Amino acid sequence: MTSPAGPADPDACADTSLLAPGWASSPAASATGDRAYLRALLDAEAALTRAQAALGLAPAEAADAVGSAAADPGAFDARSLAERARAGGNPVIPLVADLTRAVGEPYGPYVHRGATSQDILDTATMLVAARTLDLLLPDLARTERALARLASEHRETPLPGRTLTQHAVPTAFGLKAAGWRSLVLDARDRITTVRGELPAQLGGAAGTLAAFEVYGAPDPVALAAAYARELGLREPLLPWHTLRTPVADLAGALAFTAGALGKLAVDVLTLSRTEIGEVAEGSGGGSSAMPHKANPVRSTLIAAAARRAPQLAATLYGSLAAEDERPAGAWHAEWEPLRDLLRLTGGAARDAAELTEGLRVRPEVMRAHLGLTHGLIVSERLAAELAPVLGRARAKELLTELAARAYAEDRSLSELLAEVPELKGLDLAAATDPARGTGAAAALTDRALERR
Amino acid sequence: MTSPAGPADPDACADTSLLAPGWASSPAASATGDRAYLRALLDAEAALTRAQAALGLAPAEAADAVGSAAADPGAFDARSLAERARAGGNPVIPLVADLTRAVGEPYGPYVHRGATSQDILDTATMLVAARTLDLLLPDLARTERALARLASEHRETPLPGRTLTQHAVPTAFGLKAAGWRSLVLDARDRITTVRGELPAQLGGAAGTLAAFEVYGAPDPVALAAAYARELGLREPLLPWHTLRTPVADLAGALAFTAGALGKLAVDVLTLSRTEIGEVAEGSGGGSSAMPHKANPVRSTLIAAAARRAPQLAATLYGSLAAEDERPAGAWHAEWEPLRDLLRLTGGAARDAAELTEGLRVRPEVMRAHLGLTHGLIVSERLAAELAPVLGRARAKELLTELAARAYAEDRSLSELLAEVPELKGLDLAAATDPARGTGAAAALTDRALERR
Amino acid sequence: MTSPAGPADPDACADTSLLAPGWASSPAASATGDRAYLRALLDAEAALTRAQAALGLAPAEAADAVGSAAADPGAFDARSLAERARAGGNPVIPLVADLTRAVGEPYGPYVHRGATSQDILDTATMLVAARTLDLLLPDLARTERALARLASEHRETPLPGRTLTQHAVPTAFGLKAAGWRSLVLDARDRITTVRGELPAQLGGAAGTLAAFEVYGAPDPVALAAAYARELGLREPLLPWHTLRTPVADLAGALAFTAGALGKLAVDVLTLSRTEIGEVAEGSGGGSSAMPHKANPVRSTLIAAAARRAPQLAATLYGSLAAEDERPAGAWHAEWEPLRDLLRLTGGAARDAAELTEGLRVRPEVMRAHLGLTHGLIVSERLAAELAPVLGRARAKELLTELAARAYAEDRSLSELLAEVPELKGLDLAAATDPARGTGAAAALTDRALERR
Amino acid sequence: MTSPAGPADPDACADTSLLAPGWASSPAASATGDRAYLRALLDAEAALTRAQAALGLAPAEAADAVGSAAADPGAFDARSLAERARAGGNPVIPLVADLTRAVGEPYGPYVHRGATSQDILDTATMLVAARTLDLLLPDLARTERALARLASEHRETPLPGRTLTQHAVPTAFGLKAAGWRSLVLDARDRITTVRGELPAQLGGAAGTLAAFEVYGAPDPVALAAAYARELGLREPLLPWHTLRTPVADLAGALAFTAGALGKLAVDVLTLSRTEIGEVAEGSGGGSSAMPHKANPVRSTLIAAAARRAPQLAATLYGSLAAEDERPAGAWHAEWEPLRDLLRLTGGAARDAAELTEGLRVRPEVMRAHLGLTHGLIVSERLAAELAPVLGRARAKELLTELAARAYAEDRSLSELLAEVPELKGLDLAAATDPARGTGAAAALTDRALERR
Repeated sequence: MTSPAGPADPDACADTSLLAPGWASSPAASATGDRAYLRALLDAEAALTRAQAALGLAPAEAADAVGSAAADPGAFDARSLAERARAGGNPVIPLVADLTRAVGEPYGPYVHRGATSQDILDTATMLVAARTLDLLLPDLARTERALARLASEHRETPLPGRTLTQHAVPTAFGLKAAGWRSLVLDARDRITTVRGELPAQLGGAAGTLAAFEVYGAPDPVALAAAYARELGLREPLLPWHTLRTPVADLAGALAFTAGALGKLAVDVLTLSRTEIGEVAEGSGGGSSAMPHKANPVRSTLIAAAARRAPQLAATLYGSLAAEDERPAGAWHAEWEPLRDLLRLTGGAARDAAELTEGLRVRPEVMRAHLGLTHGLIVSERLAAELAPVLGRARAKELLTELAARAYAEDRSLSELLAEVPELKGLDLAAATDPARGTGAAAALTDRALERR
Repeated sequence: MTSPAGPADPDACADTSLLAPGWASSPAASATGDRAYLRALLDAEAALTRAQAALGLAPAEAADAVGSAAADPGAFDARSLAERARAGGNPVIPLVADLTRAVGEPYGPYVHRGATSQDILDTATMLVAARTLDLLLPDLARTERALARLASEHRETPLPGRTLTQHAVPTAFGLKAAGWRSLVLDARDRITTVRGELPAQLGGAAGTLAAFEVYGAPDPVALAAAYARELGLREPLLPWHTLRTPVADLAGALAFTAGALGKLAVDVLTLSRTEIGEVAEGSGGGSSAMPHKANPVRSTLIAAAARRAPQLAATLYGSLAAEDERPAGAWHAEWEPLRDLLRLTGGAARDAAELTEGLRVRPEVMRAHLGLTHGLIVSERLAAELAPVLGRARAKELLTELAARAYAEDRSLSELLAEVPELKGLDLAAATDPARGTGAAAALTDRALERR
Repeated sequence: MTSPAGPADPDACADTSLLAPGWASSPAASATGDRAYLRALLDAEAALTRAQAALGLAPAEAADAVGSAAADPGAFDARSLAERARAGGNPVIPLVADLTRAVGEPYGPYVHRGATSQDILDTATMLVAARTLDLLLPDLARTERALARLASEHRETPLPGRTLTQHAVPTAFGLKAAGWRSLVLDARDRITTVRGELPAQLGGAAGTLAAFEVYGAPDPVALAAAYARELGLREPLLPWHTLRTPVADLAGALAFTAGALGKLAVDVLTLSRTEIGEVAEGSGGGSSAMPHKANPVRSTLIAAAARRAPQLAATLYGSLAAEDERPAGAWHAEWEPLRDLLRLTGGAARDAAELTEGLRVRPEVMRAHLGLTHGLIVSERLAAELAPVLGRARAKELLTELAARAYAEDRSLSELLAEVPELKGLDLAAATDPARGTGAAAALTDRALERR
Repeated sequence: MTSPAGPADPDACADTSLLAPGWASSPAASATGDRAYLRALLDAEAALTRAQAALGLAPAEAADAVGSAAADPGAFDARSLAERARAGGNPVIPLVADLTRAVGEPYGPYVHRGATSQDILDTATMLVAARTLDLLLPDLARTERALARLASEHRETPLPGRTLTQHAVPTAFGLKAAGWRSLVLDARDRITTVRGELPAQLGGAAGTLAAFEVYGAPDPVALAAAYARELGLREPLLPWHTLRTPVADLAGALAFTAGALGKLAVDVLTLSRTEIGEVAEGSGGGSSAMPHKANPVRSTLIAAAARRAPQLAATLYGSLAAEDERPAGAWHAEWEPLRDLLRLTGGAARDAAELTEGLRVRPEVMRAHLGLTHGLIVSERLAAELAPVLGRARAKELLTELAARAYAEDRSLSELLAEVPELKGLDLAAATDPARGTGAAAALTDRALERR
């Protein structure tokens, strides 16, 4: 029963996101697949020859020839490249061979001239990151807009504030939504900053650009600048083969984004529990056997991404400690985790947009829940309001006593308070109305919504 | 320059291990691809109907019909399943629909009867794990044999023992190899234990097996037992939808294995540095531009796996805290990391086998290095041998003084010692022969090799 | 406002678990403090001299002298040791100096003779681990017993089974408790195994035991055996300075245990939410301002430990890749994370014992919740029971229709079913009684409780 | 032998950094000890009353009374607070009790008025972070200056560029130092940004500031602003009890810094290996038994910190997914890891300053190593220079042949080239001089040094 898939099976190890409903068929999925990487690798090679031509280090015809040969990733066999990548430890080595052959004579020798594999793979990775972030940002923007609308609509919708799982004091749903939105904006800002800083990589074998000098570049640093320009990436001050700030910054921004969306997700998961039901996903995943079930699938998948992202980021932060001019392992350990982070976070942003745009909010359920603690949800406020009348100690004592009775006798706090002679003169209805106990929630919401 | 791959591109998100030279085309790769998972999912469905038939809960014809329809994973469209998995959050839901359609009337209704998606996906994951571990263990065995040979051959080959990067005292290469082997055996033992414990999963919607009762099983627990038997997996005491011991145990055993091989890898990386050169990989990855380079590619890829595995395991350990009867996120966060761990570790085992079988050892270089500290590598032993002659304090003082002189005058410690009058009677050649200072290295090696 | 604590403040950097309510004043806390480590370091030094005396390599008086001087950790200044540890990078170097001085002449030279710092620190760490695990296991045993009682008492207490946060089908509280218990037993088994394998460390400067030979040991391997015996630890086959199986095994067992208890904690957190209230901690943490609040503090602290443990374990697994005979960093990175894991897990076990022994269970609330889905919690079972009467397709269709009506009209499913003419003959009360839908929950609980 | 430390021992669980030579007695150590946290907690309480007084919500005398009572952390018993923190799960609850008692009547009631524990603990944590970062930044500045000097002095010092552990092509030591410096500057920039953004926390029980309203604040948001001003911290747009951007940003900046210093450390560890010896730490840790050893202790401890920091950051990123208005576990899981990160990184910065200021560089050893590959280290350049003379294919063929002969015959490449008739006219001495092959290293160094 446990024999493996036969090795002859050509599709045996192709992954088509079967295990990844969180990012399957998302914009980030197609932007990070092997085909997308192949395209980016070829883009990097083409840009290198183009930059050399622009500086007169290669004939314009060479740039054209390489550009043509590199135009179609479909002309290259990713599976074969993957297999041949084993010999030297990275896929650029066989790709350069295939591309050189595709260009043919006389311009083949201009392919990859002076570069090292890491120049191309790092640059391609930054291209893939740029393209993925450009797709992710609109989903954050959609999410932000949906949350702004929810915050605004519900700036005064009261519901129980919950701390350590227990009702504490009232809050407003608008403030919750404004909080979610503020995290999304924080994520957007961090992603936007990182996106703008993504650099090209060009250093040659040991980061000195020496080979370009030999091939005739009077100022190889200018070539690195031209290369970055061709690619629409930033020119770094130094080759960063083992100065991995760009990768660490991506790690941080993506882990932050996944976590920020994770906060939204865990809240929706809680609020949509059967017993709570204050919100519901617009299109919960159903179950044929259990027609009453509407699973919060979008939140579930976002929450799963938020559980994974921190450890993927940890691996990338760990690769900062990369020895020598190019390292034996630290670099290789980055490739898949960075792709995974891009995918997971991109998928989570897509899900967050769907989730927030479709979220159904039930103010009446929220309001009803304010009564679940027999009115005691206002006790913090009451203690303060009764203190001037009864003295601080007596007020606290009374409330503790009535709290116990409220639960024991299954009566509301306001009923019990009405029986206390000293309090006859007070407006107990107002004092115990939880909807009036949301403090500065609306003001905070308004202020938070001013942030763009 | 940064436009994404078009969404219409059918292969846009298929991964063929382009970024994964560490496990590309390894046995673990084909055992963990989407096709292999699909096969395992279908195996699980077929076994469920078969078990029901075996207990008289379904007609034998139903088992045959499901078995036939489930026999060829190629008949199912993994990409379409991946996409449709988004609705309910897992791929089993659309697969059951497709399989039911493939079985057709009258036996379609027997597909998946009484089960929950997680029953099938968890079981399939255990099948994939079992199949992958069965392929990984032989590579550990190859590695162990190669290391046993190296340990035995070099039980008395002296080389510098290095601590905190500095030469300390002599050791023997056999002892190093025996140490690597002991880790491989530890890994084998942990993997073997976990392999034997992999359970089937059958609990139904909330782990009570209630649906099977309704479908007529007088003893649904017996059905779970029959199901496990059909699959060659262990029958668990309880459904483990949120009791994730099997996954955590896999995480621990695989992270251990990756780390154990990582120790071998970092040592080979160090010992094959250009300045050290005491060992070399049999077929180092070359460089066309730099014909003298023979990169330790196998070690590099193993080291990369060892950097990633701990954080993948952390995610899996984190999923132990899975709420309710089936969780919203913790489970979903396991799928890809567990597959990644299986692949990375399987690939590392393959590389370790190749590495150790081909490792070239240079005893003459090792011996030459014993002289790099002007003979001071034997100073610990000398201090002990001179103490009876000179007194402990004087012996230490003398050695400290001679150590300084040895470096300053670029002379060897034995030369300098020969000039000390009090030491005339001693056999200084023997006392300063580093090859005689390997202590119990050979005895320890012999004892370690007795372990099978 | 932000000036630092003055450097002259003698207590400026003493930690007394102010930030650690999870393990403060737990058995694990006193077993893992600096004083406990100091004691273990001294125990290791004393045992080394004792072992040498036992083999005739040192006078018995030396063993006595070292033993006396090492008997009181209070005689050594931990803070001064910490500071002086910076020079050589570990605290054993200054401790050996202080201990040698304390022993004085003539036996001072026998202190630490032939050993390396790592021998002593690794051995002390294993002693600390042993002592901590010996305190942790009884708390797991208490937890297990409390859970066995809960499982037994509530083997037939029905409550909603929850999946992806939604009510799915009924289960029994006893099965939940039995599940928690099975994880505790799994943890106990893993901890017990690791506890039994904790080894002593003795290898000398580079793991060859060479110095002991020089100091006269005819069979230095026998000395290592004697040393382990003196300490009550296992004798390892090889010095394990860079073969870190014992540390990795501790990491795995402790991360598993923290996660296993984390499952219990997240369930209690969920079930004690204000809206759910099916269980409550015996002594919830109160709030003076909010008398109705009874925070699930024990679960909160356990859940916090479960969030941290996996990453601490990851660091330890990462240290398996330790280069050379003794590494520059990988070893040093183990010390604090291993202590943290011991503390966190020990504290969590203490909290789990308190939590489970005091847990209040509210069967009536559980039962009431079975009605929250208008009776639809039994729909899976109903679909199966109605299929023979109505046909499978019609049964499903009817239930989907009635499910919608139940919510829309706020009526129960059984009421609606009673109006369906075709179903007149059925015992609808029984068919829709959720308490009868717990399947094999009780049988599974019984079987699980047989495990000891 | 394995009995635990007695529970009666008052110091049993006090930690004085015995296991932490990496941060013991560093500025960060005293800034992050329990005493420092206690001071910050008291500062936060005092500022709260002061802010209320400033807005007329409390008498000025109350602010004075609380300020006086809170002035001396030594007046509070940290150990007792730690123990009593267990009841409610955090140390603020008992601290408020003790502080209120210390203030006495009539101003005791003004202590903590309207705040929640998390307001105080979060604020105190930001104060501790601010104070620690203010001590860390000067150490980064020292490190940066030392590296600038090294880069400048060695802008043309050639040494082998190493990739995948093997000599590749020459580079210059100045470029390495400039690279290390650029990472330190990146770290400085990230730390500085985060330092400037550290916010105060004030939200009350559920983040609505409601209690302050009840206590008479007409505009509770203004109180939050005044509170932040009193503390010298930023005023956040929203209470961030479960919007953990500040903590995540600290995690990212600190993990980055530890990793950036880790790159420096692993390079120094490599370059100071006995066989390489191109650099040495100024004051290597010695060994009494092995006088030739000078361990690179500073690098070792930095490397150890770099191994731990990513996983600590992962835990903090994981706590972004914090449910409700205040979470049950996610918050509690932050406290110790954030402190650990501050300490580890602060300690690593101190060590990096010492390391770089004392680093000894050996240009003559570097130069000698350029010859270790028989001159083949220039083969990349040679291939390019010979191509115009011999044709590209013949040039490559010739070099491959001569590479093999150079190793086989133990001769240098330049000798062998001199025997090739076609090359008579070339200036082979120049072409094969590795010191002339450092490409743009000096130019890149100069440019990188312009960054301030």
